[in-house]
Amino acid sequence: MNDIDIEKLQGIANQLRIHSIAATTAAGSGHPTSCCSAADVVAALFFGHMRYNPKDPHYYNNDRFILSKGHAAPLLYAAWAETGLFPASELLKLRRIDNDLEGHPTPRLPFVDVATGSLGQGLGVGVGMALCGRLDKLDYRTYVLLGDGEIAEGAVWEAASLAGIYKLNNLIAIVDVNRLGQSQATAFGHDVSVYQKRFAAFGWRTEVIDGHDMDEIVEVLAAAGLGEQPLVILAKTLKGAGVSFTQDKDGWHGKPMNKEEEAKAIAELQPKTQSGIGVSIPAPSQLPAPNNTAPSSYPPVNYKLGDSVATREAYGTALVRIGEADPRIVAMDGDTKNSTFAEKFFKKFPDRSTECFIAEQNLVGVATGFGARGKVPFASTFATFFTRAYDQIRVAGISQANLKLVGSHVGVSIGEDGPSQMALEDLAMMRAVAGSIVLYPSDAVCAEKLLEVMAQKRGIFFLRTSRPKTPVIYNNDEAFPIGGAKVLRQAAGDKVTVVAAGVTLFEALKAADALKKEGIGITVVDAYSIKPLGKDVIKAAAQKTNNVVITVEDHYLEGGLGDAVAGELSLDGIKVHKLGISELPRSGKADELLAKYGIDAAAIAKKVKALG
Amino acid sequence: MNDIDIEKLQGIANQLRIHSIAATTAAGSGHPTSCCSAADVVAALFFGHMRYNPKDPHYYNNDRFILSKGHAAPLLYAAWAETGLFPASELLKLRRIDNDLEGHPTPRLPFVDVATGSLGQGLGVGVGMALCGRLDKLDYRTYVLLGDGEIAEGAVWEAASLAGIYKLNNLIAIVDVNRLGQSQATAFGHDVSVYQKRFAAFGWRTEVIDGHDMDEIVEVLAAAGLGEQPLVILAKTLKGAGVSFTQDKDGWHGKPMNKEEEAKAIAELQPKTQSGIGVSIPAPSQLPAPNNTAPSSYPPVNYKLGDSVATREAYGTALVRIGEADPRIVAMDGDTKNSTFAEKFFKKFPDRSTECFIAEQNLVGVATGFGARGKVPFASTFATFFTRAYDQIRVAGISQANLKLVGSHVGVSIGEDGPSQMALEDLAMMRAVAGSIVLYPSDAVCAEKLLEVMAQKRGIFFLRTSRPKTPVIYNNDEAFPIGGAKVLRQAAGDKVTVVAAGVTLFEALKAADALKKEGIGITVVDAYSIKPLGKDVIKAAAQKTNNVVITVEDHYLEGGLGDAVAGELSLDGIKVHKLGISELPRSGKADELLAKYGIDAAAIAKKVKALG
Repeated sequence: MNDIDIEKLQGIANQLRIHSIAATTAAGSGHPTSCCSAADVVAALFFGHMRYNPKDPHYYNNDRFILSKGHAAPLLYAAWAETGLFPASELLKLRRIDNDLEGHPTPRLPFVDVATGSLGQGLGVGVGMALCGRLDKLDYRTYVLLGDGEIAEGAVWEAASLAGIYKLNNLIAIVDVNRLGQSQATAFGHDVSVYQKRFAAFGWRTEVIDGHDMDEIVEVLAAAGLGEQPLVILAKTLKGAGVSFTQDKDGWHGKPMNKEEEAKAIAELQPKTQSGIGVSIPAPSQLPAPNNTAPSSYPPVNYKLGDSVATREAYGTALVRIGEADPRIVAMDGDTKNSTFAEKFFKKFPDRSTECFIAEQNLVGVATGFGARGKVPFASTFATFFTRAYDQIRVAGISQANLKLVGSHVGVSIGEDGPSQMALEDLAMMRAVAGSIVLYPSDAVCAEKLLEVMAQKRGIFFLRTSRPKTPVIYNNDEAFPIGGAKVLRQAAGDKVTVVAAGVTLFEALKAADALKKEGIGITVVDAYSIKPLGKDVIKAAAQKTNNVVITVEDHYLEGGLGDAVAGELSLDGIKVHKLGISELPRSGKADELLAKYGIDAAAIAKKVKALG
Repeated sequence: MNDIDIEKLQGIANQLRIHSIAATTAAGSGHPTSCCSAADVVAALFFGHMRYNPKDPHYYNNDRFILSKGHAAPLLYAAWAETGLFPASELLKLRRIDNDLEGHPTPRLPFVDVATGSLGQGLGVGVGMALCGRLDKLDYRTYVLLGDGEIAEGAVWEAASLAGIYKLNNLIAIVDVNRLGQSQATAFGHDVSVYQKRFAAFGWRTEVIDGHDMDEIVEVLAAAGLGEQPLVILAKTLKGAGVSFTQDKDGWHGKPMNKEEEAKAIAELQPKTQSGIGVSIPAPSQLPAPNNTAPSSYPPVNYKLGDSVATREAYGTALVRIGEADPRIVAMDGDTKNSTFAEKFFKKFPDRSTECFIAEQNLVGVATGFGARGKVPFASTFATFFTRAYDQIRVAGISQANLKLVGSHVGVSIGEDGPSQMALEDLAMMRAVAGSIVLYPSDAVCAEKLLEVMAQKRGIFFLRTSRPKTPVIYNNDEAFPIGGAKVLRQAAGDKVTVVAAGVTLFEALKAADALKKEGIGITVVDAYSIKPLGKDVIKAAAQKTNNVVITVEDHYLEGGLGDAVAGELSLDGIKVHKLGISELPRSGKADELLAKYGIDAAAIAKKVKALG
């Protein structure tokens, strides 16, 4: 680090400023002043400090960089252009529909690991990456650049706390304290001592610098990675720095310069610029690559028909079984591991397990970080507590992340704990995530087999597991393709097709038995694949039952199984009667609640009989 | 406070322990040990410290108490029983379906302001209540009891930060540091110095006490409300305290005692018990009641047909108009007020406005707190950032809160900023909240009129506003009932009914104009009320167009308008073609994106023509 040319870095910083200004002016929108405040820090990181191969942004031991303040995207793009990865002329295509240089970074770009732009999410992902580096015995570091406005987000403090607890000295946060938010100044302005006390209290080593003094920046970065704590660098900066008419001025958030202003700004910056091309970038060290190879198969599932096993327990069993064969599997939980049964994996593979404590946003962030590093992360908690992390899950969708969420304790069937613990909106929430797969097993075999698919197939998956024990109804060799469904009861003359999943499937089977005694036949379909829906199976069954379907779900009536079936089969002229939770439920015994809210066998039978 | 009888309080604490143990044993589930750790603090708060009228829990100047660690519900119930509000024998009906003493507290009980049980949410609500007390010039204090496990939640730190910024010395947090979480010990155990540093860094006065030493508890409470800062009391406690075989022992989380254990525990506690009945409780001071009276009408709306106004701007205009007539209206925003147009209200009514900075969980918590105190709170941010607060919104549903959420910048029509800023899941998310009303105005008049309904009608409302300007299409005297829809184009022989809202409504109107030239008629319906859906209007229209509907929405295909229409009209044999966003979108110009994702006028016209 001792041969770093300060003047050169200052020149590169100005070059990055010019690129950011020119790109946003060309786009007619964007955040040039949020780029200018961080330009010096970014120049120092990318052109002399970080160890990475600029020609291979995905190299496994490259230092990682997460732009948590995603609205400074043009600065990130400019830095990579100046490393030579792509021509700087591309920068002028910012925000265009025909170019991947989007308004906020997404992994459509090879040098972006995770999407950012919803503030406060970068540090949690960074924690996951730093933990993964430690697991893989690699010495890359993870750098996260945050804005000062965004550290009001609680997610930042969840991440900060866990980084402190696990002493992640391979994690470095840099806060660009430019004092100005979107609609007004931040609460603490340039009083960085507030942030310093906070990070220190959360277990971090803190350094305060003038974020425009390149000597200070380089000096403080030189000590990154030393000590036992994560490091936060609080960089006091000026929004719009380097341009006299924007520097530290109100009214410039999210506003591009017009052509005249652009020319004026560039005229100020131009005299002290320097290209990054050809500047020597430290190489990452040569260490063995982590073993992230998927096995070709997993050990067999082993249940007996009629065994009584909760799908949540099957999840834990499966995770151990799969984890033994698949080195990519890692697990994390939010202090519910004895309820979600992730504990089985935690006990067997402590090194591959992360206790995230009661902090679900960070739970998902950490998992996303592991996923971005080639692992297959399984994050578990009560299904309804994933609502706490919906923004993180949504953004993981934009990241096209490899993320496996397993939510237990769903619906009114959890019983006495009451509505705060009941997941009744999780299917709606998870269906509305870009590219998500939503699965809902009813028995242990199905849960285990779906987990194999989740491990093998890349993407965002949600597995909905249940609290009560349910009988094993499938053979160990049954296959459960994504987008499938299983016909469990069917006979000529059936009056209606009942589509159910989870606990309600067993209610449907009970109803079928009861109705049979009365001479009424019903088809029963297990809709274990909620998204994509097992549409063809359901449709074929419905067409044999006068095009009438009853859906039964332990979920609110909105956005879950019923809406999915109605939405998919509407054009086929199939009529869908929806049974589900239609009001705010309360505490009670599980069977009492299934009855009260009209989703038990009796309610199904009653509905069947009421049909014409 | 000087006549407090320490021994009496100790005896009451033990009585609360006995009640908690007996109730959970009777229920066969629950968290007795989490009650025992906090029993001394709760006894001190309820029987000598807090100023309230125990016969009138809703009295406007009563001190407020929020049990953020909601799983200690039996302790709260026991305390109120011991004040004489209801017979202690009721406690044995805990968690029964026929009783409101649920597993976690809900406002079905008159002494509960907001539901708790999803950890980390109480403090944010407390901040709202404390701010409201200040606004109303009342001197009640707000006490929030938290567990140590739950302060890993980021939401706690969002709330703590805002309380520090606004110097809420009428807010007192008590942390029951009992060291043991659900599945393992907390990260910091009894090292309360960690918590002390954190709260101090967030602007709080901190006190550390032995949470079982009644002298210490009483002494530290005596100084509550003094000074300029919020106060946190870090109470070092033992889980299961008072019972030798549970005290500070692993394996007792969420586990009731069996009958034998119960008897043993009660035998230990019984000799030192004391009833709370008749104990003198300090009365609240007599201060004028806040004016929370709804006006009978609002000043008129004033637009001209054809004016070009974004619905987000109409929101700001309406909030000022309504706010002038309605003293209950308060507003809060998360540093987006210049984009959501809440700024108009902030400028006009600074005292009734709360800047929550970039912390959406707390934004919703604060609003919920104001709502629980009789105000009508309007919380605004970009619609997609409400995903950050989905758990808070979900729990507000359980609280049956009076909460008005206004989300701007929806769908791909925001354009260049890209997917991280686009709300594409908000309708699905908000439909799946118990009792929610979901509204989506297309023009300024509709937005303003819906806001009047939101102000007048109690409940959780979500108003989806748009970024682009749209023409005013309704007269100023048009009424927009909840559950309605408007037929904008209709003629005999129309081929299909197009149901749209927001920006897509104008695309549908454009498509209607274009198709008309080709001799094809379509009915166009404005579905401004998404939940409840304007079902009757849509059905009547569809029945005149061969029972065929096309829905068009700037939202993912799952859980939004299309699924709502299909789910509601399936039984009427109406076929629903859904147009919406079916893949992860990207940056681009708004019109380019509407075209690319198939929801513009051309896509609608094409779909219409493709129909048989």
